[in-house]
Amino acid sequence: MMIRVLDEARSVAFYEKAFGLAIADRFAFDGFTLVYLRNADADFEIELTINHGRSEPYQLGDGYGHVAFAVDDLEAEHARFTALELSPNPVKEFFRDGALLAKFFFVTDPDGYKIEVLQKHGRYR
Amino acid sequence: MMIRVLDEARSVAFYEKAFGLAIADRFAFDGFTLVYLRNADADFEIELTINHGRSEPYQLGDGYGHVAFAVDDLEAEHARFTALELSPNPVKEFFRDGALLAKFFFVTDPDGYKIEVLQKHGRYR
Repeated sequence: MMIRVLDEARSVAFYEKAFGLAIADRFAFDGFTLVYLRNADADFEIELTINHGRSEPYQLGDGYGHVAFAVDDLEAEHARFTALELSPNPVKEFFRDGALLAKFFFVTDPDGYKIEVLQKHGRYR
Repeated sequence: MMIRVLDEARSVAFYEKAFGLAIADRFAFDGFTLVYLRNADADFEIELTINHGRSEPYQLGDGYGHVAFAVDDLEAEHARFTALELSPNPVKEFFRDGALLAKFFFVTDPDGYKIEVLQKHGRYR
């Protein structure tokens, strides 16, 4: 998935700290730079687009929601995020008919995109 | 990843036709429904949120870009999308220093979200 961000270094640092994503490729063009981030755990990449000279915050709208990362130990990740001063929201549990559907917390990236961190559970393994 | 969509049936039909995504789970709550879509090819799900009673189109903003699906045969997929009247954009090739970086086309989902369809190539396998 591709998101537009204002500050390449700030976003690369955030995604590395928060999710262990490393730069798989980086291409600088006239006017914009593309940075591809991935880790070994998922068959998925985040592509950052940095439009050179843009300083106005992007409008995030109300349509796109978030991307979610599944983790082995949600409480440990929450503690780690807190220690890294990434300001995670509290851990929440989401029940339906008495059954746990999801245990998760949200964090916000430097441009304001919400990201869900989800305990591996059920289909999410 | 989660996106908000207006019409559950319309979106489910689109993602099934376009990407072979099937409903892995569906939960109806007071006020909203969550639909989880996946296929066997990727360790990834799309979650649709349908807010009941919403008719106003979602504001997509200019921050979130798109999600991309990698396919084995881009030209065949483009022909299939065309036959299904999904109105794919033309196939494009993206070169850098003479080397092919990516071959792809874009399509738009029923709510206006752009989606990239990408030839498997390089890291995208």
